[in-house]
Amino acid sequence: MSKQRTVSRREILKSTAMAAAGSAALFGQAPAVVTTRRFRAWVTRGGGTSRTTLQELTLRPVTGRQLVVRTEATNLCYSNVGAVLGPLNNPGAAPGTAPRGGGPAAGPGGGRAIVQGHGGVGIVEAVGPEVRRVKAGDRVCVSGTPQCGSCYQCLRGRADMCQFLARQGPNDLFPIADMSDGTAVYANSLIGGLAELMVTNEEWVVPIFTKAAPADLGMVCSCVSVAGLGATTCPTLAPVQPASIVDVVGCGPLGLSAVQGARIAGASTIIAIDSVKARRDVALQVGATHVLDPLADRNVVQRVRELSSTPNNRLWSGGRDSGGLLGGAGADYVIEAAGADAVAPKVEASPDPTGILALQQAYDMCAPGGHVVTTSLPRGKVTISAVTFAIGGKTHHAGQAGGANPMRDIPRFVELLDKKQYNAKALATTVVPIQGMLDAYEQVAYRTTITAIMTA
Amino acid sequence: MSKQRTVSRREILKSTAMAAAGSAALFGQAPAVVTTRRFRAWVTRGGGTSRTTLQELTLRPVTGRQLVVRTEATNLCYSNVGAVLGPLNNPGAAPGTAPRGGGPAAGPGGGRAIVQGHGGVGIVEAVGPEVRRVKAGDRVCVSGTPQCGSCYQCLRGRADMCQFLARQGPNDLFPIADMSDGTAVYANSLIGGLAELMVTNEEWVVPIFTKAAPADLGMVCSCVSVAGLGATTCPTLAPVQPASIVDVVGCGPLGLSAVQGARIAGASTIIAIDSVKARRDVALQVGATHVLDPLADRNVVQRVRELSSTPNNRLWSGGRDSGGLLGGAGADYVIEAAGADAVAPKVEASPDPTGILALQQAYDMCAPGGHVVTTSLPRGKVTISAVTFAIGGKTHHAGQAGGANPMRDIPRFVELLDKKQYNAKALATTVVPIQGMLDAYEQVAYRTTITAIMTA
Amino acid sequence: MSKQRTVSRREILKSTAMAAAGSAALFGQAPAVVTTRRFRAWVTRGGGTSRTTLQELTLRPVTGRQLVVRTEATNLCYSNVGAVLGPLNNPGAAPGTAPRGGGPAAGPGGGRAIVQGHGGVGIVEAVGPEVRRVKAGDRVCVSGTPQCGSCYQCLRGRADMCQFLARQGPNDLFPIADMSDGTAVYANSLIGGLAELMVTNEEWVVPIFTKAAPADLGMVCSCVSVAGLGATTCPTLAPVQPASIVDVVGCGPLGLSAVQGARIAGASTIIAIDSVKARRDVALQVGATHVLDPLADRNVVQRVRELSSTPNNRLWSGGRDSGGLLGGAGADYVIEAAGADAVAPKVEASPDPTGILALQQAYDMCAPGGHVVTTSLPRGKVTISAVTFAIGGKTHHAGQAGGANPMRDIPRFVELLDKKQYNAKALATTVVPIQGMLDAYEQVAYRTTITAIMTA
Amino acid sequence: MSKQRTVSRREILKSTAMAAAGSAALFGQAPAVVTTRRFRAWVTRGGGTSRTTLQELTLRPVTGRQLVVRTEATNLCYSNVGAVLGPLNNPGAAPGTAPRGGGPAAGPGGGRAIVQGHGGVGIVEAVGPEVRRVKAGDRVCVSGTPQCGSCYQCLRGRADMCQFLARQGPNDLFPIADMSDGTAVYANSLIGGLAELMVTNEEWVVPIFTKAAPADLGMVCSCVSVAGLGATTCPTLAPVQPASIVDVVGCGPLGLSAVQGARIAGASTIIAIDSVKARRDVALQVGATHVLDPLADRNVVQRVRELSSTPNNRLWSGGRDSGGLLGGAGADYVIEAAGADAVAPKVEASPDPTGILALQQAYDMCAPGGHVVTTSLPRGKVTISAVTFAIGGKTHHAGQAGGANPMRDIPRFVELLDKKQYNAKALATTVVPIQGMLDAYEQVAYRTTITAIMTA
Repeated sequence: MSKQRTVSRREILKSTAMAAAGSAALFGQAPAVVTTRRFRAWVTRGGGTSRTTLQELTLRPVTGRQLVVRTEATNLCYSNVGAVLGPLNNPGAAPGTAPRGGGPAAGPGGGRAIVQGHGGVGIVEAVGPEVRRVKAGDRVCVSGTPQCGSCYQCLRGRADMCQFLARQGPNDLFPIADMSDGTAVYANSLIGGLAELMVTNEEWVVPIFTKAAPADLGMVCSCVSVAGLGATTCPTLAPVQPASIVDVVGCGPLGLSAVQGARIAGASTIIAIDSVKARRDVALQVGATHVLDPLADRNVVQRVRELSSTPNNRLWSGGRDSGGLLGGAGADYVIEAAGADAVAPKVEASPDPTGILALQQAYDMCAPGGHVVTTSLPRGKVTISAVTFAIGGKTHHAGQAGGANPMRDIPRFVELLDKKQYNAKALATTVVPIQGMLDAYEQVAYRTTITAIMTA
Repeated sequence: MSKQRTVSRREILKSTAMAAAGSAALFGQAPAVVTTRRFRAWVTRGGGTSRTTLQELTLRPVTGRQLVVRTEATNLCYSNVGAVLGPLNNPGAAPGTAPRGGGPAAGPGGGRAIVQGHGGVGIVEAVGPEVRRVKAGDRVCVSGTPQCGSCYQCLRGRADMCQFLARQGPNDLFPIADMSDGTAVYANSLIGGLAELMVTNEEWVVPIFTKAAPADLGMVCSCVSVAGLGATTCPTLAPVQPASIVDVVGCGPLGLSAVQGARIAGASTIIAIDSVKARRDVALQVGATHVLDPLADRNVVQRVRELSSTPNNRLWSGGRDSGGLLGGAGADYVIEAAGADAVAPKVEASPDPTGILALQQAYDMCAPGGHVVTTSLPRGKVTISAVTFAIGGKTHHAGQAGGANPMRDIPRFVELLDKKQYNAKALATTVVPIQGMLDAYEQVAYRTTITAIMTA
Repeated sequence: MSKQRTVSRREILKSTAMAAAGSAALFGQAPAVVTTRRFRAWVTRGGGTSRTTLQELTLRPVTGRQLVVRTEATNLCYSNVGAVLGPLNNPGAAPGTAPRGGGPAAGPGGGRAIVQGHGGVGIVEAVGPEVRRVKAGDRVCVSGTPQCGSCYQCLRGRADMCQFLARQGPNDLFPIADMSDGTAVYANSLIGGLAELMVTNEEWVVPIFTKAAPADLGMVCSCVSVAGLGATTCPTLAPVQPASIVDVVGCGPLGLSAVQGARIAGASTIIAIDSVKARRDVALQVGATHVLDPLADRNVVQRVRELSSTPNNRLWSGGRDSGGLLGGAGADYVIEAAGADAVAPKVEASPDPTGILALQQAYDMCAPGGHVVTTSLPRGKVTISAVTFAIGGKTHHAGQAGGANPMRDIPRFVELLDKKQYNAKALATTVVPIQGMLDAYEQVAYRTTITAIMTA
Repeated sequence: MSKQRTVSRREILKSTAMAAAGSAALFGQAPAVVTTRRFRAWVTRGGGTSRTTLQELTLRPVTGRQLVVRTEATNLCYSNVGAVLGPLNNPGAAPGTAPRGGGPAAGPGGGRAIVQGHGGVGIVEAVGPEVRRVKAGDRVCVSGTPQCGSCYQCLRGRADMCQFLARQGPNDLFPIADMSDGTAVYANSLIGGLAELMVTNEEWVVPIFTKAAPADLGMVCSCVSVAGLGATTCPTLAPVQPASIVDVVGCGPLGLSAVQGARIAGASTIIAIDSVKARRDVALQVGATHVLDPLADRNVVQRVRELSSTPNNRLWSGGRDSGGLLGGAGADYVIEAAGADAVAPKVEASPDPTGILALQQAYDMCAPGGHVVTTSLPRGKVTISAVTFAIGGKTHHAGQAGGANPMRDIPRFVELLDKKQYNAKALATTVVPIQGMLDAYEQVAYRTTITAIMTA
């Protein structure tokens, strides 16, 4: 029985792909002669610090809704630091426990060989017989978030919560290739971006039509850019209105994309908060009108309120200050983009490595009547004054991917790149070929670069 | 200098009203000869258990934006229990610390004489010279939430957060009448509903045009009905869609109005949760399709998920169950209407007298992609899993008055009463004349009635 | 080469289905042994009045995204009158020129043999190998409007405009069965509901899970019910708010479903307009609070304005009457559901057989700030005062299927049926077995019944 | 009895202001000693070509909700051309018949002396005793559209349709000053911007807090800028989303403000259409990515469709082209800003002086699923294919002032000016002192300048 039928039985993708090569030829757009294809991939095995090595693999044939993409560029996402690099200088952190994109991590000692990386851009090389969305030769984004168009969430305008992502677990992976010793190799999150070829399912693929340079395209299509631009410009959650006051808490590549999204959407005041000076500098470069350092100014909530007050504070005249028990003015929109540290950074550390403080401050610095959009992967529990939570007048949007619908919004974001509205180069401060991946990922882990793109 | 000018200097209503009677005649619609008017009112003084007594007062003249309303009916709101009745059998609770409507409470030993009650319906007797919205003879609701139409919140579609409410503190009250011994009497929340006359400001008044019976009208115009109907039927927060699954946590008069709002808005499944059997019975009477007792079924979150699952659970077919780390199905809308106990009830007590558990369960029983609307006055802090909070896909709306804009929505709710869509009698289970107020308020305090209406 | 691949080359469905039967067995959920299945179908050929005859056909094998549904019930939609019955007593009308659902009509003299009918409900008998959404044994609605989940419109929340509908033309049909003389038979709109079996593509199918009776289910899932309920209860266009004033122009089964949707959504005033007394009677039965006869009261626009005025007409008090050049009050929502006559009715004829007058009146009777939703198939051009059109303050929503997203909304509408919120029997005033189809369709054509359901 | 009381009896502002000077002193923030104030104003009398002359007037005392504003700058709006200049070279046009802002025009032979001009910016000099919104010394915009905050439209989020505007007619004006010969002088639209002082009512005034230069401020606060920015950036109608395709039909100052609003809101493609080359040049300067000349390219609808098509046209891949009967791609948003000619321009004339063709083309060039926002003052009737109108999938928003709520949005637009997001100087191509008004208005009338600002 073929693999794709198991989807509706909640055992998505559990079985080994067994489709006969001949069937692909019968239905495919073009015969998908990919069985003997060899390619390089960073394969992660076991739990040590040298768990990830560059290997030459042999591709398995694709079938059903699967397809093969020749990688042009992939972002080295911070949420994969633990899974790729293993334990660094921070034994307290739990590497690989919270992968963005819902994908499974190779736990310490996990026997599986996995290609990490949960996103990328490239060219479709071959498609399984049921693939409808793209054909060989198309340029595509392999998105960290899938979009099926038929599940409960996709149907209700919440493709950022597409159930193909939520229901997928470690057991749903299938082998995509074999090592020279015959070991089967799997793709993290059904993507496996740290390789010359990605094997994925149709739902994860978005066709894009652009001549943008691979590194720029890899940047704008990365899960962090999509989430940052989504949180500020997509209709799903709380799109920024022109002339508004936006606060961005955390200026990694996600937060810096939110800064750009706020600028693109016409915000007049954009306050960016991060303890790392280099990030604040980039924030100013890409659109922030103010930056705050939570180490130097521990009461950032109060500072945001001051920056968002107006000369006019009179009730009858539309003044912003709400006064009373609910506190003063605040931002119209707060985008929280902090999250937990995977390892101790080699730059200025944030006040709270769990990311909880940032979440709570984000909530507090929002004006009554304003919107808080959270996007991060924190550790622990968030605690909020119950009265403020209950009737404080704030709307809180908890979205995945910043509310972006990959099929609808990634082409829009590529348009922002092509029209020079989005600055990819300011964020992709490290660009390396496939061989340079490990060094680049260490820069990401220690936050000594904004983010890194591997071209392949 | 007259009082109304001080509004724009953020000292709203601080000064004693001193306007000369002559000025009212100059500008008013009709000479407001009300200076010698005598009326009965429940006046609260000091901190003991017999703090509230029925007194005959002499009205002071109104001026500026003030007006006088002859009370037809007023709801005995649970949030005023401590202020009206003083310490009952529950020394642990903090009476009067969290009055709905932002009004000040008479603290223990507070020297002021205050008419409690933060809402009511009646007929306008006289208006100050600047009043535009109503004229003498109009039937009006005196709303617990004001609407000015010019403040930052009113202008942005959040009249439920009208800054006239948020900025008002205990020092903003002005004396409305005098006791026979010359003591000045103030009106709680600028309303003072527990009296034959209410003196308020224009912003708190909504003209309504109906022939409904006073008790029914007092019920539907009460702050709790407005909040419950607002949370389910107003466009401000998350109006219930036809055919959806709605969960209401807490079935006091606010929650039971939310049950009715959900029914009116066409919900197909309405799950009402309360530990008090009498409330669950009324919930079934006014529209709930299911009721849950949190004492009998401690895992109400799981029960709601089961009740909101569907026969179809397949991904490709729009099945509700989201699976994965984010948990199973849940309600499309959760209306939280629990809040903290002011005193220990004489009926089945809820599992948590602070109201925190209800808030947290409300959040948990909402489906990913669904909406949580909170409306209560809890005590303490709410704690939520940070990852669920950050990216769990729920939208949380913290509104005052359920997001209702009094001027827009209270006439709509009266229309629902007039067209027999809203059942007021099922909620107003106690109706008393002014002399019976104290007994009726004890029933409210001990939750032995759904709610009580005082007609005057 | 298989048919389903041509989709992405804009030649959707043009080619004859040629898939080998063997391939279905390879990928399918179950071997689809349907090649020798015989079934009865009403087949339309040529242009005369007896163009449609009951035939026994032999099913062709299905492949790709195709599937076979055993019909339980199908609605005899007025928009197909000309195509099914041919020229009746109304040579002026253009039969078959404007089929709802975008499907092609058999023009006079058209050589093709076609099974008319653009919707139905039934049980899936067999599925092609690429079908993901349903499996054999599922109960489904075959929807007049498809939903693909991947096209520009579906991605932007406008599945009612799914491009699979818009791009489809007469040449995109493929033969589904053969007559005994070897003539190939096609299915109108890729559906062909007037038969014991329907062969369609996956995009047209919505899985539903209910035990409702076939005729009731066929009614609520019909294109007209979906459009009427969609226009009033779906978030796509202008969902009716509780306590509002709704006007429905035209009370065929679409308009009567809109009346019901308005009632379900909590409207307080529902004004239904139709020249046919029997329809007005049903309108009152299913929720209208007022009915108007445009023959008796030619100035229905003015009557609607009067019925939507309120006792309070004062500016400062939220009175509805807008006065001035823009005219008086009007309905909050106007649902236009008239359309052109295919033949002269044998009941009270509407004032304008083209449907243009109804469109223009619908626009005029909407209040400034209100919403007009149009759903009909008129003939000709609509003419509106340019200043009113430009700045009159009305929002006009032109949707297909009332804005309903079939996959999201049809299960919701079935829920409304199951919970007895929607009254199907009041609309399905004629129910016939397959042999009675022609007689029943004549009743529909002459408007002597509300609508008719054929069970099979 | 004072004037302001008549408001609620629908006779707003009909009576002559008769308040005693003393009363102002009693309630006012500061004694408003303005009775002997003299000022220059352009006064229009009679029907000839030299109807408008510069006069020195004596201000009448203000009372109630009235206030006096010392004019800093006022825009010479095209819609007043006929009223100010009288018959020019275009007897076919009907001068003064369609004043923007609902104000009355001085008909030929009309006996009244009127100060034309329906907007301006300045400093409050004195306020009547009931004014709450501003105080003496405030910088304000006197808006062509009022905002009362209490009428039916303001309460429902449609302050652009504030009923104070709609209900106001020629008879509602009151005299604000006297000529040296004793003739009473009125202010057009309750504003009268063509003078050193404006006397208006509180509802027309918006407090702003900025140090912007008067001419720039007069530009951004003009009714045309407000409408253009409103139509693109306000939440009322259809705010432009980032990365979208926007088409602006007509590039006078309103259309050019819409071009800027589209740029500010992040549109990626902005197509500006006008027959005047100088306007197209400014369009490119302020943000248009493409310009079209309807004289050179008569099929502008088709050109917009071509410019809004994408490389990807495949159904499964989200391609824009909808195909089928509903036509090809189109703009996501079309802002119509053409309107009728008051006189024949001395530059390139548009293809249709009535403005009807522009309206119809605007409708046609919108994509199915897209939004058409109309803002103009056309002459005649608009005619649209009934099927396209009924079910073509377009949403049409007919707003006043582009949907802008003056109190909410004008401060936002001033913020856009202050942060250099809005370019005022490119539009205010003529700036004159009060003496130069007539010459400047002729430039506006003949369209030889973009627009003109009179500083005073």
